[in-house]
Amino acid sequence: MSNVSIIGVGNMARAIGARALEGGNSVELIGRDQAKADALARDLGSGATTRAFGSAPSGDIVILAVLYASAVPIVRQYGDALAGKIIVDMANAFAPGATGLLTPDGSSAAEQIADVAPADAHVVKAFNTLFGHVLEAGSNQRRRLDVFLAGDDAPAKQAVSSFIDSLELHPLDAGPLTMARSLEHAGLLMMGLAGNGVGHYNFALAITDLTI
Amino acid sequence: MSNVSIIGVGNMARAIGARALEGGNSVELIGRDQAKADALARDLGSGATTRAFGSAPSGDIVILAVLYASAVPIVRQYGDALAGKIIVDMANAFAPGATGLLTPDGSSAAEQIADVAPADAHVVKAFNTLFGHVLEAGSNQRRRLDVFLAGDDAPAKQAVSSFIDSLELHPLDAGPLTMARSLEHAGLLMMGLAGNGVGHYNFALAITDLTI
Repeated sequence: MSNVSIIGVGNMARAIGARALEGGNSVELIGRDQAKADALARDLGSGATTRAFGSAPSGDIVILAVLYASAVPIVRQYGDALAGKIIVDMANAFAPGATGLLTPDGSSAAEQIADVAPADAHVVKAFNTLFGHVLEAGSNQRRRLDVFLAGDDAPAKQAVSSFIDSLELHPLDAGPLTMARSLEHAGLLMMGLAGNGVGHYNFALAITDLTI
Repeated sequence: MSNVSIIGVGNMARAIGARALEGGNSVELIGRDQAKADALARDLGSGATTRAFGSAPSGDIVILAVLYASAVPIVRQYGDALAGKIIVDMANAFAPGATGLLTPDGSSAAEQIADVAPADAHVVKAFNTLFGHVLEAGSNQRRRLDVFLAGDDAPAKQAVSSFIDSLELHPLDAGPLTMARSLEHAGLLMMGLAGNGVGHYNFALAITDLTI
């Protein structure tokens, strides 16, 4: 089991928090709005706790379940309170209308976060190809959805992969943190598919493994 | 059925040509090396023809089954011989080691091809998330693999989607041609997955549709 802190109180925090508790992990919820964090902790039950926004998280894995616009500022604000932590970034930096990405060329939300994180923290990109409602619905349907991840530190990726396993999801390591650029494009691709050939948002990106 | 011309005599040309003929389409093969085109046509049988490299293709759909380094020069060289054609680009512009893309930021191989194609030709990105050997093996296993596509002309995308259907593959429109950037990143993502979490190249990118 893992000790995780989730910064954010929206639908991704709820979906991952619920699965994390079902999987036997300890979950600490952190929100700028303490009342919302308290309410989410009550909803989730199973020993979920809260912590005041801005104080050092207790989890070894700190999951940023916030919008792109907030992610980099929050990591900068936390500063050394994230020293030694594994920081999981799931941001999709969509331009208006999901026609492109807001991140500068040759970068990614994950790399921007790594740039402002403490030197001994390890950023892992993950979960950005799962819509929050799919993560919730998938839990009921017990589908073992693929979760793509990327990062530069092998032990950190192993820890995040173990955590993903505990959520009854299937971790798939895509390589170094620069691969977050391709993962964020994959998030954009999903928006394009939803608005065109797929026609709805009730799907996840996956691989078809022909050896299975 | 479609009339397709395939420029290229490698494994993607072979795999798509074989499936196209099985699906009742007419297939014309075009290679710089006429002897290789003739040999491939003989191997494929089923009425596959060849045409001299550089002369106007007969197919309504012209499939570029060549490496990225050749794709743009070939389309430039063909010039008006591709007027009115649907040009299918499947190029992956991987940097050495598949650690990034060779295409300039804010562009894609497909958009570069569109830039040099005749004004009334329509470029559709497709097939770049399918390894050639997977396309061949998948044919034997009768797996209906997903084929992601992107382009700006709706009738052209419909024609390519019908062709993909005839190959017993599943077309999924991702949106306008700018989405080719995300599709080419998806190709890079697959290389990252192959070298890391998946550990082999016998897979295809897909969606898990939770409504099915």
